[in-house]
Amino acid sequence: MGDSKPAVHFERIAFIGIGLIGSSLARVIRRQGLADHIAVNARSHETLDTVMELGLADSVSTDAREVVSGADLVMVCAPLGAYASVTKAMAPALREGCIVSDVGSVKEVVFHDIGSQLPADVHLVPGHPVAGTEHSGPEAGFAELFQGRFCILTPNGQADDAAVQKVSDLWTAAGSTVEIMDAKHHDQVLAITSHLPHLIAYTIVDTATELEDTLKGEVAKYSAGGFRDFTRIAASDPTMWRDVFLTNRDAVLDVLGRFTEDLTALQRAIRRGQGEKLYDVFERTREIRRGVIEHGQEVPPAPPEKD
Amino acid sequence: MGDSKPAVHFERIAFIGIGLIGSSLARVIRRQGLADHIAVNARSHETLDTVMELGLADSVSTDAREVVSGADLVMVCAPLGAYASVTKAMAPALREGCIVSDVGSVKEVVFHDIGSQLPADVHLVPGHPVAGTEHSGPEAGFAELFQGRFCILTPNGQADDAAVQKVSDLWTAAGSTVEIMDAKHHDQVLAITSHLPHLIAYTIVDTATELEDTLKGEVAKYSAGGFRDFTRIAASDPTMWRDVFLTNRDAVLDVLGRFTEDLTALQRAIRRGQGEKLYDVFERTREIRRGVIEHGQEVPPAPPEKD
Repeated sequence: MGDSKPAVHFERIAFIGIGLIGSSLARVIRRQGLADHIAVNARSHETLDTVMELGLADSVSTDAREVVSGADLVMVCAPLGAYASVTKAMAPALREGCIVSDVGSVKEVVFHDIGSQLPADVHLVPGHPVAGTEHSGPEAGFAELFQGRFCILTPNGQADDAAVQKVSDLWTAAGSTVEIMDAKHHDQVLAITSHLPHLIAYTIVDTATELEDTLKGEVAKYSAGGFRDFTRIAASDPTMWRDVFLTNRDAVLDVLGRFTEDLTALQRAIRRGQGEKLYDVFERTREIRRGVIEHGQEVPPAPPEKD
Repeated sequence: MGDSKPAVHFERIAFIGIGLIGSSLARVIRRQGLADHIAVNARSHETLDTVMELGLADSVSTDAREVVSGADLVMVCAPLGAYASVTKAMAPALREGCIVSDVGSVKEVVFHDIGSQLPADVHLVPGHPVAGTEHSGPEAGFAELFQGRFCILTPNGQADDAAVQKVSDLWTAAGSTVEIMDAKHHDQVLAITSHLPHLIAYTIVDTATELEDTLKGEVAKYSAGGFRDFTRIAASDPTMWRDVFLTNRDAVLDVLGRFTEDLTALQRAIRRGQGEKLYDVFERTREIRRGVIEHGQEVPPAPPEKD
């Protein structure tokens, strides 16, 4: 950003909910001076106290209406399951021309749960920063979280171009590459790259927790053989992930069906001792890994030593 | 190790096969002077040239018999599927009192494929360092790979105590914590902590490779949402993993059956919109993560900047 004026500027940004993603974005906004005022809404006073202690907000309130009042950008960072109710609460207080965006992992549902309740003069620009860690809550955020990651916007041709551009500029300032995508397509892509992996990780860790006690005690101990990575994914926020599966049900069930077929084929190959079949699958999966590396997405994000 | 004498010493250590694990152990042995002579056997001249260039061996040969001749420790680091044939080749040349050990990920099969062919005066001490990366080959090794990891030995009460102690001392010198375990039990524990996770990771990446081209191109790009970790696991050595599934079939099929049942239950909960059920599973899996952290196994190993 250097010493020039910020790439984008808002008068008042309202956060509805503020966990890992929201607080990381608030840190970016603070650090670069991208808003005159940051107002934060959360359900609990405890969260709001934390946000004030962290210096992430100029004002806080448990009343969503109060927080969005006068805002030119409202960033919904609540769990997907709360979208309809928070929108109902805040909608009457939204100012004309206000942009409403979000950071949820499922995008088609946003038009229904948020969009259908917005006044006509408000611009909806759904967004999804493809970034995260297994930690939750405002303390877990850090400004570098979005650097080098993709942020997908799904305005679906319904939002004003200038509004899309402003949200895009915000994520660019956070260090992300912005992509515009159809919401339904987004949900299909993320079903395989994010939702299914989380479901699988939760399942395998759950399978381990139900083993006999003699085995269970050793699972964590010898986790360095591969299991460790699954436990990290399966430590993600349960509320957020419950809502992802409930709101992206069709796409998740579709890829889950494909996955199960493929797993059954491998199971059959193992049972029959078909080494060549196993080898062929294990060999061709390396190609995708190369793609991940080419896209610069291979390194998990890590918070800096001190934020 | 400081300036005192090494914790364990061998006259001649013979490596049968030398990939990521074998070459990392050879680096430890070299660095700490734990052997007067390191002799390496591999099938290809190319591998042997690499090993000489890396300074990991005093002598190399494609003839296993020549390499083990005079060795007081033979470390089998070949894929599990080659154990029977390499043992057949080297057995006649093993010296009296020699210790034969290995680094394979499945342990019960070692008694059959190696043990049954050894002369009575040779000590078999099967071993499994629970460590690794997704990279393969002697260039990928590094001496720090075993630090802070567990190494499981499965002598099953059949080996001489002094022989077990010497192998144990070697892994302790490499920075590992040594555990003695029954071979069959080892195979059950690793089926859940390592073999199933790899099978699942290979499957999900394979499922992604078979998507329509429009989706496929985006999978690597948006992999930071969880998929990335699976691609890393699924980039592991195909030969090694084929052999793991063929040699630990029963234990893998058993945990795979449990996993499939659990996954079906979650699938049903998603289809029926049972949010509470999903939440309960996602919440309880966090406990295992805490166990992983307590055992200090949460950080994946990384090679140093320069070995």
